[in-house]
Amino acid sequence: MDKLRVSLLGATGMVGQKMVRLLSNHPFIELTKVSASPGKIGKKYSEAVKWVEGGEIPQHATDLRVVSTEPEDHKDVDVVLSALPNELAEGIELKLVREGITVVSNASPFRMDPEVPLINPEVNWEHLKLLDTQRQKRGWKGLMVKNPNCTAAIMSMPIKPLLKYKLNNLIITTLQAVSGAGYNGLSFMSITNNVIPYIKGEEDKIPKESGKMLGRLNGDRIDHVELKAMVTSTRVPVKVGHMGVMYLFFDSQVNAEEVKNELSRFRSLPQEKNLPTAPKTPIRILEGEDRPQPEIDVRSENGMSISVGRVKNEGNAIRMVVLGDNLVRGAAGITILTLEVMRELGYV
Amino acid sequence: MDKLRVSLLGATGMVGQKMVRLLSNHPFIELTKVSASPGKIGKKYSEAVKWVEGGEIPQHATDLRVVSTEPEDHKDVDVVLSALPNELAEGIELKLVREGITVVSNASPFRMDPEVPLINPEVNWEHLKLLDTQRQKRGWKGLMVKNPNCTAAIMSMPIKPLLKYKLNNLIITTLQAVSGAGYNGLSFMSITNNVIPYIKGEEDKIPKESGKMLGRLNGDRIDHVELKAMVTSTRVPVKVGHMGVMYLFFDSQVNAEEVKNELSRFRSLPQEKNLPTAPKTPIRILEGEDRPQPEIDVRSENGMSISVGRVKNEGNAIRMVVLGDNLVRGAAGITILTLEVMRELGYV
Amino acid sequence: MDKLRVSLLGATGMVGQKMVRLLSNHPFIELTKVSASPGKIGKKYSEAVKWVEGGEIPQHATDLRVVSTEPEDHKDVDVVLSALPNELAEGIELKLVREGITVVSNASPFRMDPEVPLINPEVNWEHLKLLDTQRQKRGWKGLMVKNPNCTAAIMSMPIKPLLKYKLNNLIITTLQAVSGAGYNGLSFMSITNNVIPYIKGEEDKIPKESGKMLGRLNGDRIDHVELKAMVTSTRVPVKVGHMGVMYLFFDSQVNAEEVKNELSRFRSLPQEKNLPTAPKTPIRILEGEDRPQPEIDVRSENGMSISVGRVKNEGNAIRMVVLGDNLVRGAAGITILTLEVMRELGYV
Amino acid sequence: MDKLRVSLLGATGMVGQKMVRLLSNHPFIELTKVSASPGKIGKKYSEAVKWVEGGEIPQHATDLRVVSTEPEDHKDVDVVLSALPNELAEGIELKLVREGITVVSNASPFRMDPEVPLINPEVNWEHLKLLDTQRQKRGWKGLMVKNPNCTAAIMSMPIKPLLKYKLNNLIITTLQAVSGAGYNGLSFMSITNNVIPYIKGEEDKIPKESGKMLGRLNGDRIDHVELKAMVTSTRVPVKVGHMGVMYLFFDSQVNAEEVKNELSRFRSLPQEKNLPTAPKTPIRILEGEDRPQPEIDVRSENGMSISVGRVKNEGNAIRMVVLGDNLVRGAAGITILTLEVMRELGYV
Repeated sequence: MDKLRVSLLGATGMVGQKMVRLLSNHPFIELTKVSASPGKIGKKYSEAVKWVEGGEIPQHATDLRVVSTEPEDHKDVDVVLSALPNELAEGIELKLVREGITVVSNASPFRMDPEVPLINPEVNWEHLKLLDTQRQKRGWKGLMVKNPNCTAAIMSMPIKPLLKYKLNNLIITTLQAVSGAGYNGLSFMSITNNVIPYIKGEEDKIPKESGKMLGRLNGDRIDHVELKAMVTSTRVPVKVGHMGVMYLFFDSQVNAEEVKNELSRFRSLPQEKNLPTAPKTPIRILEGEDRPQPEIDVRSENGMSISVGRVKNEGNAIRMVVLGDNLVRGAAGITILTLEVMRELGYV
Repeated sequence: MDKLRVSLLGATGMVGQKMVRLLSNHPFIELTKVSASPGKIGKKYSEAVKWVEGGEIPQHATDLRVVSTEPEDHKDVDVVLSALPNELAEGIELKLVREGITVVSNASPFRMDPEVPLINPEVNWEHLKLLDTQRQKRGWKGLMVKNPNCTAAIMSMPIKPLLKYKLNNLIITTLQAVSGAGYNGLSFMSITNNVIPYIKGEEDKIPKESGKMLGRLNGDRIDHVELKAMVTSTRVPVKVGHMGVMYLFFDSQVNAEEVKNELSRFRSLPQEKNLPTAPKTPIRILEGEDRPQPEIDVRSENGMSISVGRVKNEGNAIRMVVLGDNLVRGAAGITILTLEVMRELGYV
Repeated sequence: MDKLRVSLLGATGMVGQKMVRLLSNHPFIELTKVSASPGKIGKKYSEAVKWVEGGEIPQHATDLRVVSTEPEDHKDVDVVLSALPNELAEGIELKLVREGITVVSNASPFRMDPEVPLINPEVNWEHLKLLDTQRQKRGWKGLMVKNPNCTAAIMSMPIKPLLKYKLNNLIITTLQAVSGAGYNGLSFMSITNNVIPYIKGEEDKIPKESGKMLGRLNGDRIDHVELKAMVTSTRVPVKVGHMGVMYLFFDSQVNAEEVKNELSRFRSLPQEKNLPTAPKTPIRILEGEDRPQPEIDVRSENGMSISVGRVKNEGNAIRMVVLGDNLVRGAAGITILTLEVMRELGYV
Repeated sequence: MDKLRVSLLGATGMVGQKMVRLLSNHPFIELTKVSASPGKIGKKYSEAVKWVEGGEIPQHATDLRVVSTEPEDHKDVDVVLSALPNELAEGIELKLVREGITVVSNASPFRMDPEVPLINPEVNWEHLKLLDTQRQKRGWKGLMVKNPNCTAAIMSMPIKPLLKYKLNNLIITTLQAVSGAGYNGLSFMSITNNVIPYIKGEEDKIPKESGKMLGRLNGDRIDHVELKAMVTSTRVPVKVGHMGVMYLFFDSQVNAEEVKNELSRFRSLPQEKNLPTAPKTPIRILEGEDRPQPEIDVRSENGMSISVGRVKNEGNAIRMVVLGDNLVRGAAGITILTLEVMRELGYV
């Protein structure tokens, strides 16, 4: 079988580097182009990047020459993956899609567009069906697929298997890692030995994006789930790993053991098809009373598995602490897993 | 007016050092004795202590000789302040009280004892009235007064002025500083770049102790407030400053502006009597959307003022982020302020 | 006696904030103007500044209106203090001095100018004598005085009293705090849990600037000391406090006890005249084998005293570990102390 | 070929865990026994260990039952690897060796014993020849081999290829990671945002152990190299990675480019025999002016390669910054590599 040829936008950023790592030795995706800011065009990737991933730059990328984000530079690939910053993504991605290119993107523009699937593969791979009518409805020649905000990607996972119980209300306090703001997003002086109890835009995105992802495919549109969620987002001095302390309020009492069972046995298409980037256990239940912890748990299954601990009944509520790798499960990893699902379903 | 002569148990620990600092230049409390672990007895304080408070050891303490915790070593003081570790406190403090000494203590034993006032001065100074009958009921010759757990001390403050609204339910996620576990409580390897979503015993203490402190004095006993609280305590890599993200659920909608007014104009006996350690503004309302922050706000009014930010209505709930100095407001400072109130009321 | 009226350039930066703090309640310096970047002009200081000093903004500054850096905005002050960024300072400061204003500045341009005194008050207050001929030689109407690089300010202190021994060679490895690069100088992701063994420009500045400061006033010029120094500068994840591990090689063996005596009894004009910002003990000798430490020692005498520990003979070499507050002793504090000396000597 | 059966003492500690990780999927070493403190005997490894290595406990170890350190519990293995704490090692290891067991150990006792080889494989594998006469000279039935202190292991590597130049003198300032003191060796409060310029015992060990390792095998004894070294050891708030700023003083000027060549092409027996744990490039030369950095470079070649940067001539001196993984290159990795060499040479 031929490999999928992909190019990567935003390849020198932190999420871009993570994708470069995840694509090394991929069985059927081949990174053939990298794109970065104009000043880097023409340079070898190894010269253009300030490699912060640790270890060496993977061989498959070192000698790639940086190209522009213009469509003509991406005509000969099957898919463009985008790790662009949000503020640059809208124009660049739209231009590519209009020119006939398929774009799978982490950036925020178009996430809430009703014709654009917002994919967290295990949660809502079915929503890719929106692609069947996207071209026609929008007049695009290519296809556009989005991945959610990193926190929404992580927190929506354990909610999915619990939707079968009647969920009324949700209270989440997040403790989010600094890498979520980008490599230079927060200065050492501002966040070390500190907590900043606010992240711009985040408290709205989590329920909105989760409401779409957890929604039901209804013909050629998504019926969003109405999540009555109260979210407080805080930034903590941790490099990688978004944690959420979640209270889920149900119509009636739900048993904690049952919840743990539902979560730990949750499987979806990526597991059934044994896709290369899919975690075997999408949601790990940890019984240790002091878990999950970023330093111990965030890299489980290469960062693609969500860790859940401290599951406990309190009346009609279930309390749980949820942790995921914001750079992998929340960004680079789901983009690649989304592409794997798209190929499985024949969209690429 | 004569100065109150006090001795200090646990004087070389982190909270003890903070008390030594707070008592330097105190207008009417004079530190005359310090006590520490047996191996240090007889040494000068400056030789016995590993001073970690920063700056120099205050002059008034440097040359004090360390004495034992035995009653005979504390006969000639008016009050014994205790910053003893919880596991040592019970026996030592009880012995002192039985021998006729007045003890004001931060340690946990006896906090929930119905005859022992658990004092957070602005919140429940009236509970000192339990002392009127304590001697007789318990057969002690001295008096015992307790201060609450550091988190309960901080979180109970902003609840107090809101009790006039009908409070049904409370959900708190705390982000607590490492100093709350003591100077050697957590290793660098275990908590740096990490969050530990569990603190032993803490999730129970907060509602239990707050329920007592917020209770109503009813003759010679306290009618506890029944707080339906769900608490999740986490440890974050911050040195000083306990933060709580609080959701308070009321019977009906309560206006956020009104809440801010109630909190910011809250005053109590320590303010009315202008006591030396009392903060002028016990609860500061911060309007900056990214406040309070430990590195910026924790030292307000020498660590005695609580900072509250992000106050917001969500249906019948009020969300707020609360921050206090766990070593001062949560420990050393309220012990001293409690003693100041006791003197004001004539108990010493 | 009339107060000196000063304005402060770069008043909203980290060093500027430190100066605002140090000038509150100053006996004879009054801050009457603050200047900041163009977008802040006209605002009240309290609105223009993102206050990161901790605690409240000092009263004397809150209501000052931000003015420009243009000379006409500083006509009615006695002195302009500058905490401008290096890249902006040259043009702005020169314009002010040409227009007749006296500028005392922390910024790097002109530090090595032979007509400009580079002052670390205890080390070389005599160099202010350059001011007697500066106007005439340069054709400036005002005066320009510079303070050294933060590391040079700290490391030159303990060298000064040891110049009487024949010093041949110097090897220094520095461990410098992140605040030395400015509040936003280094991202959390780049330096947390890390060491960066390089600071641009620093390794040259230390010997060059120290060579000038330690030089001898010879009429109307300075004869620099030729320091054969090898310097390696590293950045460590510490907020405040530059440390240097110094090896000083002498012509013959120098006794460690004698060195400690020389350093600890070192006094200079600021001490003799008892200037308000002068530390009583410019160089503290610490005997604890694990000292100095930033978290314990950096704030000694409000950050104006240098701490020296681990003094030891090794052959003809003396090894010592030197620590100073880079924001106070290395920046804001020496600027103010320099102005105090200038007034003492009648230059303002 | 049969696998070597090994047991591991101190298997639940941080270095022990690292060895468990490194031995998973080893081609010819099989971990068959784990030993830990008495209270853990009989438990499964997965229950006895507080796993802090990150990721999952390797399968090969999870179900091993913890045994004692007594010889009878290790009769049926080929070699005992020891990651015991220094204070327990002497008696336990000696007893095992006397009973006929071969012990390869990281612990400090016996390191300077003239009959015991102190092995850093690439540096001095030839010293294993001491084993030929060790039994007879000491009357032991087994064999004892030691690995050096973690800092000596790292710093001795780049010195080895430079011994051909006449090295007169050495000045080293180390910046050492907290893990070097063990998982609970330093509290968060003591080292966060701080530097401690002292590590007990370390400043002597580095030249002493390096002098032995770099010494010449002379029949059945080692002629130590006399290293005139001045060492200052500091602890910095970094989890993993010991850095050394080294100045090497030679008899005459040595060219920096030549030094880089010598270091980067250094190879030894482990590379020639292509041993499984041997790094392909024992010493990596980094040209980036801000390298090496722990967060970027420490894991190179799974932590077995040393990184060297900032190589520069200063007169007859060469300055370089050296970095190595203190847990792998400095401990767990060299123990295993030593065993691989011993098998290659027929000692096991």
